[in-house]
Amino acid sequence: LSSKLPRVGTTIFTVMSKLATDLNALNLSQGFPNFPTDPALLDLVTKAMRAGHNQYAPMPGVPLLREAIARKTIDCYGVSYHPDTEVTVTTGATEGLYAAITTVVQPLDEVVVFEPAYDSYVPAIELAGGVPVYVTLTPANNYAIDWAVVREKITDRTRLVIINTPHNPTGRVWTRDDLDTLAGLIRDRDIFVVSDEVYEHILFDGRTHHSLMTHPVLQERTFVIGSFGKTFHTTGWKIGYCLAPKELTAEFRKVHQFVTFSVSTPMQYALAEYLQQPERYQSLPSFYEQKRDLFLAAIAPSRFTFIPTEGTFFQNVSYASITDEPDYDLAIRLTHEIGVASIPTSVFYEPNAARPKNDYKMLRFCFAKDDDTLLQAAERLCKL
Amino acid sequence: LSSKLPRVGTTIFTVMSKLATDLNALNLSQGFPNFPTDPALLDLVTKAMRAGHNQYAPMPGVPLLREAIARKTIDCYGVSYHPDTEVTVTTGATEGLYAAITTVVQPLDEVVVFEPAYDSYVPAIELAGGVPVYVTLTPANNYAIDWAVVREKITDRTRLVIINTPHNPTGRVWTRDDLDTLAGLIRDRDIFVVSDEVYEHILFDGRTHHSLMTHPVLQERTFVIGSFGKTFHTTGWKIGYCLAPKELTAEFRKVHQFVTFSVSTPMQYALAEYLQQPERYQSLPSFYEQKRDLFLAAIAPSRFTFIPTEGTFFQNVSYASITDEPDYDLAIRLTHEIGVASIPTSVFYEPNAARPKNDYKMLRFCFAKDDDTLLQAAERLCKL
Ligand SMILES: CSCCC(=O)C(=O)O
Ligand SMILES: CSCCC(=O)C(=O)O
Repeated sequence: LSSKLPRVGTTIFTVMSKLATDLNALNLSQGFPNFPTDPALLDLVTKAMRAGHNQYAPMPGVPLLREAIARKTIDCYGVSYHPDTEVTVTTGATEGLYAAITTVVQPLDEVVVFEPAYDSYVPAIELAGGVPVYVTLTPANNYAIDWAVVREKITDRTRLVIINTPHNPTGRVWTRDDLDTLAGLIRDRDIFVVSDEVYEHILFDGRTHHSLMTHPVLQERTFVIGSFGKTFHTTGWKIGYCLAPKELTAEFRKVHQFVTFSVSTPMQYALAEYLQQPERYQSLPSFYEQKRDLFLAAIAPSRFTFIPTEGTFFQNVSYASITDEPDYDLAIRLTHEIGVASIPTSVFYEPNAARPKNDYKMLRFCFAKDDDTLLQAAERLCKL
Repeated sequence: LSSKLPRVGTTIFTVMSKLATDLNALNLSQGFPNFPTDPALLDLVTKAMRAGHNQYAPMPGVPLLREAIARKTIDCYGVSYHPDTEVTVTTGATEGLYAAITTVVQPLDEVVVFEPAYDSYVPAIELAGGVPVYVTLTPANNYAIDWAVVREKITDRTRLVIINTPHNPTGRVWTRDDLDTLAGLIRDRDIFVVSDEVYEHILFDGRTHHSLMTHPVLQERTFVIGSFGKTFHTTGWKIGYCLAPKELTAEFRKVHQFVTFSVSTPMQYALAEYLQQPERYQSLPSFYEQKRDLFLAAIAPSRFTFIPTEGTFFQNVSYASITDEPDYDLAIRLTHEIGVASIPTSVFYEPNAARPKNDYKMLRFCFAKDDDTLLQAAERLCKL
């Protein structure tokens, strides 16, 4: 069997989480909370199952949930998507991203990807026969986008740009200016956008999430991907969604219906009801800001250096002043030696590309953990 | 946006189920049970959620569930798959089929499909750039396979054969001879098999399910796809699995990890525990045979003609002696006029291909319904 993804191994998230479990290490690698989900949400699932909601949901999603998502989108961004034709419930953000990329990309189409990039984008592009074109962001200027470079990379073969804001792994948040500049670059071209906004509710220091849907030029060509796993501490339920104008949604659903067809029915009913109280996601920034601040204060005495993350529940830290090791080796070593698992950020870059060495001297820590875990991990990291 | 699936509309299952709901008709179209799921299974999900199993499952599936699947496979077929490297939990059979097809098929590869065929196979082939090559089974000889035709269709470009036994929509069950013949045809070629066996536990009149894994020549090149939705009356939970030898599983997981990454964690824990009592699936043949017999006895006085289905929870019936209408029109009309929804079987064939007209004069009824629904539907059908 010749491989469809010859360069791909097991995702780093699986590798590190398994190592953390095997070694009983504190797991600050894969992005998931280690604290309990709201019992009220669990009870809603039980209620939905007992009410008999255990058979196929409609392919685009349970209507009540699509309506709740549309309402939330108006509340948060003042943008309206029609629940019948512009909102689709997906099997987590991963399937949403996969289906959107597969919907747009034809063989040999070029796709602009900002690296470091979440690790599912490029394999999805490659399975569709597309060609990733990388724009590299560097820690030297806190991952600001060099628009001159982006301009150069956009060609007649560009079909798609993939955006992620707040950005995993760097925590960088796009500004309104970034949106305007992107819009100017692509407005007269046949270019679509997939916008991964799964951390839309996790921004710090009073920052605003500039969803791509809030920019009219971008909105009409963008698939916005969201996630209830990140927002309601249920990453294992695999419920996300895709918002896109009617014509794009029609094509998206053609792919979605043959990739997974539909999404867990009882969980959809539960989320529809749970969403009726907006406080449930409005409380997220302060909840995670407290965790970020706790963790950063606790690692401040360490020899790691960092710029406080603007959003997401990840903090990148540089270890350049501690050791010269490759980040992958260090992440493995720290899991073994001090029992703290992290993600080596080199996995988010194009393999084998030449780039400034210090870009790779970064580890990513997930602070979606209970305070005890964060403090213990920090204590161990300070000893290095 | 130019369509990746220009010939595809909304699946017939969505169309008919929505029509049935809108018109409050008896829904014998889409394949799902209308009776309650075992409360013991629901309680296990609640238990798993309360125990905190709400974050990402391991990418290949929760180990306990993979072990339970491996045990069940030995119990049922005497074939052993290693839970760590040969069993993968998928987002329903749909994602299992999609990922397996995507794993094998490269652009321009030919894939042999027996039609009538479940409607997700061909779009998955086309998204991978493959070319479906149809072998048509006809009601004239109760959908027996004409192996001379298969032999002709296999070429140097054939990369994959898709099997479905028990077969949806015809109920046809493959024999041991079918397996031998297929093995003889492909053993010296670089051809893989995807075997959709989601109805493995629903066979009638004492028939045996000949899983492709029971044939050594086939086993080593086959991805066997199973479904808990069909087996435990939970089609809306979207939990299936893929069994394949280690090398195939390694490539399958590379695709799976970027299509959905992982599958609902609490439901996986629940199913792992539920599977510990094999009676729970062993009782299925007699459970559904009673339903088939009830439904067939009740429609016997009608003007429809049929051969009792050998497996699955579907019965195909011919309406050739009642009307000349296209099956799609008739299915819509019956939903409106007598409140009984069914599936027009022409949707399972290659569009626009010339074939004997009577192949299309068939409707498919799903008898995974409570006895009352079946009797009421039959009464209405008898009035035609
Ligand atoms: C799908 S596993 C990865 C989880 C995640 O979003 C991350 O750790 O970056
Ligand atoms: C995924 S919806 C289709 C359900 C089914 O298997 C059928 O009705 O054939």
